[in-house]
This record gives sequence, structure tokens and C-alpha cells, in this order.
Amino acid sequence: MKLYESLAAELAHSIRSGVLRAGDRLPSIRQVTANRNVSASTVFQAYYALEAQGLIRARQRSGYFVAHGVRRLAPEPDSSSQPQEEAVSVDISDRVFDVLESTMVRNVVPLGSAFPSPLLFPLERLGRALASSIHQLDPWSTVDDLTPGNACLRRQIALRYLAEGLHIHTDEIVITNGALEALNLCLAAVTRPGDAVLVESPTFYAALQSLERMQLEAIEVPTHPREGIELAALERAIERHRPKACWLMTNFQNPLGSLMPDEKKRALVELLTRHNVPLIEDDVYGELYFGNRRPAPAKAFDREGIVMHCSSFSKCLAPGYRVGWAAPGQYARAVARQKLTSTLTSPVPIQLGLAHYLEKGGYDKHLRKLRQSLEAQQTVFAQAIGHYFPPGTRATRPAGGYFLWVEMPDGVDALDIHKHALSHGISVAPGPIFSAKRAFANCLRLNYGHLWDARSEAAVATLGRLVGAYAGRSGAGPR
Amino acid sequence: MKLYESLAAELAHSIRSGVLRAGDRLPSIRQVTANRNVSASTVFQAYYALEAQGLIRARQRSGYFVAHGVRRLAPEPDSSSQPQEEAVSVDISDRVFDVLESTMVRNVVPLGSAFPSPLLFPLERLGRALASSIHQLDPWSTVDDLTPGNACLRRQIALRYLAEGLHIHTDEIVITNGALEALNLCLAAVTRPGDAVLVESPTFYAALQSLERMQLEAIEVPTHPREGIELAALERAIERHRPKACWLMTNFQNPLGSLMPDEKKRALVELLTRHNVPLIEDDVYGELYFGNRRPAPAKAFDREGIVMHCSSFSKCLAPGYRVGWAAPGQYARAVARQKLTSTLTSPVPIQLGLAHYLEKGGYDKHLRKLRQSLEAQQTVFAQAIGHYFPPGTRATRPAGGYFLWVEMPDGVDALDIHKHALSHGISVAPGPIFSAKRAFANCLRLNYGHLWDARSEAAVATLGRLVGAYAGRSGAGPR
Repeated sequence: MKLYESLAAELAHSIRSGVLRAGDRLPSIRQVTANRNVSASTVFQAYYALEAQGLIRARQRSGYFVAHGVRRLAPEPDSSSQPQEEAVSVDISDRVFDVLESTMVRNVVPLGSAFPSPLLFPLERLGRALASSIHQLDPWSTVDDLTPGNACLRRQIALRYLAEGLHIHTDEIVITNGALEALNLCLAAVTRPGDAVLVESPTFYAALQSLERMQLEAIEVPTHPREGIELAALERAIERHRPKACWLMTNFQNPLGSLMPDEKKRALVELLTRHNVPLIEDDVYGELYFGNRRPAPAKAFDREGIVMHCSSFSKCLAPGYRVGWAAPGQYARAVARQKLTSTLTSPVPIQLGLAHYLEKGGYDKHLRKLRQSLEAQQTVFAQAIGHYFPPGTRATRPAGGYFLWVEMPDGVDALDIHKHALSHGISVAPGPIFSAKRAFANCLRLNYGHLWDARSEAAVATLGRLVGAYAGRSGAGPR
Repeated sequence: MKLYESLAAELAHSIRSGVLRAGDRLPSIRQVTANRNVSASTVFQAYYALEAQGLIRARQRSGYFVAHGVRRLAPEPDSSSQPQEEAVSVDISDRVFDVLESTMVRNVVPLGSAFPSPLLFPLERLGRALASSIHQLDPWSTVDDLTPGNACLRRQIALRYLAEGLHIHTDEIVITNGALEALNLCLAAVTRPGDAVLVESPTFYAALQSLERMQLEAIEVPTHPREGIELAALERAIERHRPKACWLMTNFQNPLGSLMPDEKKRALVELLTRHNVPLIEDDVYGELYFGNRRPAPAKAFDREGIVMHCSSFSKCLAPGYRVGWAAPGQYARAVARQKLTSTLTSPVPIQLGLAHYLEKGGYDKHLRKLRQSLEAQQTVFAQAIGHYFPPGTRATRPAGGYFLWVEMPDGVDALDIHKHALSHGISVAPGPIFSAKRAFANCLRLNYGHLWDARSEAAVATLGRLVGAYAGRSGAGPR
């Protein structure tokens, strides 16, 4: 992160947390230059960035002030979920599809979408890399680049981990058709029908759908909206149910946005190692951090090879390219064989194109821009929630990713809100699709990964009005 | 097929079947022109084509003669397989991998390969189509083109079927990551662990691996090397085992090369419809016919939507692109949902590139050239088998595809031959990997889909020598 970026981030935090309030004057350029020992141009850049996010306004000849439009944020949810302790068979997939399919309509405001806006990605540049590498395609690569995948691409992925201090051998990496395939292959490699698997509560609905498809039972474990899965509860569940795997997201969990602290990740891996439970780690949001550096994956703390780490380029670089990977530790060979008998290999031209893009550079620059956009979008989105949603609403403030988890006042039914919102041309992801038991009846996952405009503002206003009316009608209030 | 091509095919058949023998003079151009009412240039073209295949030679001023190099062919196997009638759990996947991995080494003569030579495909032209379509990529297509896939590509596929008189609605088609994924999704859509599934004997090893991965039982049904699965045996197996699906190839079956006659296909579909058993039809070789027209798939005879038809571009156009599809009849929605929870979607740029290529044309021209190459390669390959393999060898003469199935004299162990051949730098596919019961101990599947050269000739000679030595040593003889 550049100097001006960290300065801007620090000030943005002060504004959002209320230390600086609407109308407050910011320190002058000269003051900051002197106090922080940075150049005037650094301070200017930081102020410009904050102005672009709508957080501060310049007044001629009087300096910069916190913008009046800056709205209060809804309070954060702060207690862990309390799912039942039973292992349950999953029967949710059709429900999930019914909800998702109804939202896959053009021209709906995509607050329920699982994807960020495709306009945030360097698709043209990727296209040039793909076109250039396809013209140099060695015909024999179509035969040689079978599972585990193209060697150059695997090397580029390994190099990125290495730059973060994480040693993953190129040979351990299996290229897959997006992270979803990676996760599924890992799950298939360590389970058989009837086995139980630990998941977060709430958890990404695709995890539940995979469990259902493979006839596995789900054990939902209490999860904190800021710090992730509860380790004590996790250990109790392991002792009680003897699960064959644990599937979770350590960084910017979908849907909560929780970020597990490093020490907790270390303890998680130690705990699972002790009980010999493989960890299927979904780290697709790890690159979308707003802080100073990429949060480590649980894989970084793995000594015995029990972490089956999965990620992809779909959320941070190349949506629609469907390139993901698994680094499955001691299960690498089993996962590669699962891949060989299910989809054989991933398209060779696509693998070559991505390898070419990563080699030529530009990825880190794109990521910096993407993170800034998402952070700025979160700011305005969260403020709009605070402004339009009724009292009693809580909303997470994730330090990365592009989802907010919103707890509406008790009694508000997210599935009803989903239906009403849809009739107003707005999609939302209702809480019950994130739980095998269809809990989280009053919760929504909202996507702020789309460019903020008048249409977004109107959509959040409409949603807030719908929720408010529902809360009033049902007699629901702040809890 | 053009006029000269059918004339050439007819004469080639006469030569291969022994009606015309080495040294025989072919009718003069004038005679053929008069008798067949075709132009002289048509006859010339046919003779040139036969000359290029090495079947005939021109002698100055005396006309064309059947070439002396034309070798006898090994007799065809002519009886159906006789597998056990039990349903068996499958435990073959590791064995298959051990065999396959040992052959995936550069510089081995790839007679055991499952792929034709990548040099037979218009990879440059495909690359241009891909590059051109990627530059016009609509960013929103990365979100919109989720399962069931890009609408233009599905329409192009439907149009090709329509041109053959087969009505498959665009909406029925689900784009997949190669035919292998299509087959797996179809199988998963209609079975649960423990169910029994009908397969051919021998059958494509990947079908066995899929059954094993999904914990399904295999019922191997007697199959004729020319005409495919035996319907009477199939019906007995259905009545006895109540299978949940039947997975087979009607056209140029892998490994036998058998081609089910149209009337048999019709009877097959009627039989399965009567017993309410879905048919998973793998038709990846259907376009690689040597006859006058594309053989119909079983799908063409389906009235109730029980045929889950699967195919791909991997064997006939775009190896390494990994684009296949399913047209799963009444199971289309279930298959699409399987796809959504396992790999979500296939890479959008690849789908667009193929749609672009198919729209612009050139595919049929490429296919004609490809078929001619494969037919010519079969001719020389089959003759080499006849020449170098010991008496008692039988070999199929498929009317399409790129595999020969070779029955060596009784007592010759294909797994031993596989090992010996490998030490000579030659791969083969041994019979036992095509059967859950590891039958076909004395059989090989050989790939003639690579350009014939001195290295191929030497490889077949070496193989023949190894088999001959083994047959002599073990006292095996013609059976």
C-alpha cells in the first residue's frame, strides 16, 4: 500500500467510526506534512482519494471538511450464531435454486448477486494476453497440459504465494474449473456418502449444495460475524460427531465477511491436525483486503498437509474464465485423480492466457485499484443502509470482500423481503439459503461490488422502506 | 461426401476385402467414366486419393494397379463378449491410472493414447476465432453466460443436429467441460450410491472410473465388435438387476469401434423406454464416420426424453478446449442443476470462440479432411497389424473413429505386453482396463489417429514381434 493510501485509509476509518463528524475541518495540508513527515503531494493525494469517496469536501480557501452526506452506520452484529448441535442431512438445494434463479434476470439491481461487477476487471488486457498466447499455442500442449494443469500457470500461482511467504510447491497445485470445482474435488477426496462435515453458520450456500449432492451431513458450528468460526464449539462438534472434513472461509467469509485473526487460524489448524480432520479452505476473497496486507490463509500454518487450500481468479481478476486451483496438501494426488475422472482438465488456451497475463505483470496494480473501489463502495453502501433501514438493523463492516450481512429487526422475514424486493426490480440473498436448518430468517446478504449510482441509492432506499414497513406491521422492533 | 470420395471409398473397400488383389489392374479412366456416368476428373480425383493412401500405384502409360505393398488384414473378431451376469462393485480406477500415467510420457509412440494427433485440428483458425471473439467480449456475458451456457453456442450445436434431421431444442442443451463432465452430470442426475448401471463389455474405462467414484455397481452386457451391445442380454440384465441407467456408445464405440445399426438403435431406445431406464449416450465419435453420412445417435429415436445424449468438440475439432454438452431430454433441468453445484459454468471466452468459429463456417470442410486422414491412417495401420502380428491375431475394422481393437492369440497377456512395449518406447491400452472384471486379458486398444510414419511402422513391427515371441513362448496359438 502506498503512503497516501494508508493515510487515506486511516482518515476514512476516523470518519466512519465517528471520531471525525460531518462538518469537522480536517487538518491543513501543512499541518499533516509537518506532523507526519510526508510530502504535501502525499497529503493531497490522500485528500483527493477521500473526496472521490464522498467522505470529505473541499471549501474554497478554507480547506477540507468531513462531508455532510456522511451517514451514520448501522451498529455491527456482535454475537456468534447459535445453530443446533445436531448433524443434519441437507435438503436445501432446490430452495437455493428457486431463490437464485429468480434473481438471474437482466435489469434487476443485483444486490443478491454472488459476483462483483464485471466492469471492475481488466477484461480487455486479459483478452489481449489470451489472444497473444493462443497464437503461440503448441498443439501438443492440448495433450500434455492435462491434470494437474499447465506448468507455467501453476508456477505463477506458486510464486504469488511465495511472495507472501507461503511455500506451496508447484507440483501440489491442481488447476480446476473455478474454486467451486476445487472445493468439490477436495470434498469428494476425503468423504463418502453419510459422512458428516463441519461448516460455518451461516455458510456459503454452495457448500450446502455440495454436501447435499454428495449425501453428506452438515454440522453447523457457531460463527462470529467478525472473527469467524468458534473454536471451542468446533472442538465439541468434532468430539461428538467425528466429521470427515471441515469446510470454511478464513478470510472475508461469505456471507458474514468475517476475518479470522492469524492466531486463531493457527489454533484452528492445530486443533484440526490434532483430531485428524482435513480442512477445506475456501480463500477466494483473500486478495480483496482493505488493510495493509493480504491476510494469511490457514494453509500458512499447516505443518502436516491437512489443509486443502482452494482459490481462484474469478473474484479478483478474471470472472468467466473459470480458473481456480487446489493446493490439497497430502491429498494432492487423490484430488488430481478426482479431477481426471470428472472433468479431465481445464481448457488449455485459458490456462495459457492467464499464465501469460501473470507473467507480464499488471496484476498487482489491478488488485490495488480493485480493492480501493470495493472499499469506497462499501463506505457509501454501508452509509445508505444506516440511513434507509429502520432502527434495530445491524450490519457487518468487513475488512475486505464485497458482501454486507444485514440483520433486520426481529420478525422481518427475509424470504418475504426477497419476494417484495424482486417485484421492485431488486434482488437480495435471503438468510435462510445460508443454513441447512433455514435459520437467519431476518438476515440478508447484500452485494456492494457494483458501482454506486442513483439506481443503487434508490434500490437501498426502497429496500429500507420495505423492511421498515414490515417491521412496523409485524410489531418487530429493535432487539 | 463428394462423388470422387464415394468412388474412392468403394474401390478402397474392394482392395481391403481382397476382391482386388496386389498387381490387379484397375479399370481405365475411360471405362469408369463410361460405366459410372461420371466425369474423368472425378475418376482422376478418386485414383489420386487411393494413390495417396498407398493403395494403388500408377505405372507410366499402363494405368493404375493395386499396390504390392498392400498387406493382408487380420481377420475380424466376430463374436460377442461374454461377461459374467452379476452386478459388481468397481475397483479399477487406480489400476487404470497406473496404466495411463505410465504412458503419459513425451516421446512414447502413443498407440495407447485416447486422443488423436493434435496436428489434425485447425488450431490456428480456432485461435483466430477465439482472439476475435475475446476482443468483442461483453463484460456482462461473464455473469449472464452461466449454466446452461452461451446461447449462441447452444444454438450452433442445435443447428448442426437439425441439419441431420434431429430436433434438439437449444434450451435442452447444457454446455459442459468436455463430454466427460456431461456424462458424469447425467449419471449423477439419475443415480444414487449403490445403484446398478448397465455398460458395454468392454467399455470405456472412464465410465468404470465414474461408476467407482460414485459408488455404483456395473453390469457388463455382452457386446458385439461390429454391432454393439446385445439387446436380448440387455433386457435380461434389466429384468434381473433393475438398473438406474444404461451408459454406452452407439457410434464407433471406444474401444471396439462397433457401430450400432439404426434399427438396433431404435429397438434399444424402445426397450429402455419400456423399462424406464435412462440411456446415457456418449456420442463423441459420431462425426468421425468413414461412410456416406453421419450415423444417427440413439437420441434420434427417442420419443419420451429418456436419452441423455452427450458429445463434445474434443475429438473432432478442438482438443484442449474442453467444450462438450449434454442434451439430457427430460432430465435437462436436473443436469443443469448438477452443473451449477459442481463447476458452475464453462469458461465464457472459450464458448464464445467456438460459437464464432461455428458461425463463420469451415467446420464441415475440416471434418471432411479429418475423416479422410483417419480412414487413410486406419488402412495403413490395419495392414501393418496384419503384416507384423502373429497368426491367430484378430483386429476390428471400424467404419469410423481412430481405435482398433486387437485380439492377440490366447495366452498372450496384454498387461505384460504393455510393460514390454513401454520399455521399447511404445504405449498401448491393455484390454483389462476396459472391464470391471479385468477381462480381455489378451486384447489391446490401439490408436491409429496419429500420422503414419517410419516411427509408427517400427513401433507396430516391434509390438508384433513382442506378441509373436510371447505367443510362441506361452504355446499360445490361433484360437
